Amino acid sequence: MTGFVYLVGSGPGDPDLMTVKARRLLDEADVVLHDKLPGPEILGTIDEERREDVGKRAGGEWTPQEYTNRRLVELAEAGKTVVRLKGGDPFVFGRGGEEAEHLAAHDIPFEYVPGVTSAIAGPGVAGIPVTHRDHASSVSFVTGHEDPTKAESAVDWEALAATGGTLVVLMGVGKLPDYTAALREAGMDPATPVALVERATWPDMQVATGTLDTIVDVRDEAGIEPPAITVIGDVAGTRDRVVEFLRTRT
Amino acid sequence: MTGFVYLVGSGPGDPDLMTVKARRLLDEADVVLHDKLPGPEILGTIDEERREDVGKRAGGEWTPQEYTNRRLVELAEAGKTVVRLKGGDPFVFGRGGEEAEHLAAHDIPFEYVPGVTSAIAGPGVAGIPVTHRDHASSVSFVTGHEDPTKAESAVDWEALAATGGTLVVLMGVGKLPDYTAALREAGMDPATPVALVERATWPDMQVATGTLDTIVDVRDEAGIEPPAITVIGDVAGTRDRVVEFLRTRT
Ligand SMILES: C[S@@+](CC[C@H](N)C(=O)[O-])C[C@H]1O[C@@H](n2cnc3c(N)ncnc32)[C@H](O)[C@@H]1O
Ligand SMILES: C[S@@+](CC[C@H](N)C(=O)[O-])C[C@H]1O[C@@H](n2cnc3c(N)ncnc32)[C@H](O)[C@@H]1O
Repeated sequence: MTGFVYLVGSGPGDPDLMTVKARRLLDEADVVLHDKLPGPEILGTIDEERREDVGKRAGGEWTPQEYTNRRLVELAEAGKTVVRLKGGDPFVFGRGGEEAEHLAAHDIPFEYVPGVTSAIAGPGVAGIPVTHRDHASSVSFVTGHEDPTKAESAVDWEALAATGGTLVVLMGVGKLPDYTAALREAGMDPATPVALVERATWPDMQVATGTLDTIVDVRDEAGIEPPAITVIGDVAGTRDRVVEFLRTRT
Repeated sequence: MTGFVYLVGSGPGDPDLMTVKARRLLDEADVVLHDKLPGPEILGTIDEERREDVGKRAGGEWTPQEYTNRRLVELAEAGKTVVRLKGGDPFVFGRGGEEAEHLAAHDIPFEYVPGVTSAIAGPGVAGIPVTHRDHASSVSFVTGHEDPTKAESAVDWEALAATGGTLVVLMGVGKLPDYTAALREAGMDPATPVALVERATWPDMQVATGTLDTIVDVRDEAGIEPPAITVIGDVAGTRDRVVEFLRTRT
């Protein structure tokens, strides 16, 4: 009897922001494969003996992703009900698509259980709506950490700037100087509001704000580190209008 | 004593895809203001006497949005704990930003409770990851139904096409012929895979697939109606590789 794999989003980190289904599956699964991104609060709710951290494997025979793919198939073929838990949503820069294809290629039935992505909730809990009738008719999520094995960079910062919409950069703390420079060169106003949201919804969440011109210094002064979201666009300027009345994690 | 307003995302429609927090707040709030987008299954879990449908108000003294804004303030000033329930996430084309600003301008404390957006979960439950290491380094969410009161259209389809990433169009059933034409004119390959996902995660969900060239006919033959998500890009072509093993709503 083949088992079953659930590709499950954990949301941004606050256990209350998991879906009802994710919560139930975490409680019932035989095994939960995870990395560190779901965060200590959520991981702390899963019994040690049913948890497997696949995030730290590296330097072995397989890359972490190859290892995870093999382990998912191995466990399912042994008849287990497996949760593959991912931070945010599994299909937003989460390699969930690759895992789904690997499972299907090995005849393993699976289900996708969406989660609240940090790309929306991160700005949101800082008081920043990613779209706004007066400010942004589109929002683009982009990786700040392009796959270095790709010949040409697949991220076209000029085109992204030209959309006129909100830009949300994931994995974008380290290369912040590079892509803010690229956006300025593409003609984006240096006074465009920018916010950084670190560990959104975690107890030690941190928010820092500036402009396209100042945000690198702001990052350094505030000591912003991954995981963090960068949100670029006029919507980031609306935070000031609401922050006094905005509560988080009541 | 001023009350409190929670701007809450319901997720795409399956009650199991609400967050743990949304579920609790729906059970505990004094009043729930909603429109039709959360869907019959979720709305059906709220007692009639605590529900107020603010979606259908029109033709009166105020627009539906003005009415909702006033009603939120009125209830909070009467000391109520209010849930403003929105389909998907409140800050994704949901007017949540405007409601937050209106509340703050009236000294009403509020909290944003993110939800699973249909823009990610819709493609996802159809087997389509919005990003993919091999196919898309960015994803853009865009409205297919531009505010007709704006002088110039704020959506730049040429720039969106140039990003090379996945495009997800919300409110895009009616104007599908217009923006698919705009994307072809902008040089997007007419063979680009496109999928339509209607009532994603609802019991009567429907998926239809084609290309930039064929999708208008596909829409008409399948009878796709709002609410539906349009997903445009190579990722839409990966559905075929997984759909046989993909289960929904187990
Ligand atoms: C590999 S991506 C995975 C994204 C995830 N699938 C999601 O939907 O949120 C990792 C990046 O997500 C962002 N991220 C994830 N959780 C976050 C959080 N709680 N606060 C801020 N950023 C977060 C950071 O940009 C981080 O570098
Ligand atoms: C006003 S927008 C609100 C979007 C919502 N805030 C979200 O995050 O999903 C309404 C549009 O969302 C999309 N939508 C919402 N729920 C959907 C569902 N269950 N299936 C497909 N599309 C949906 C449709 O494109 C619809 O026209």
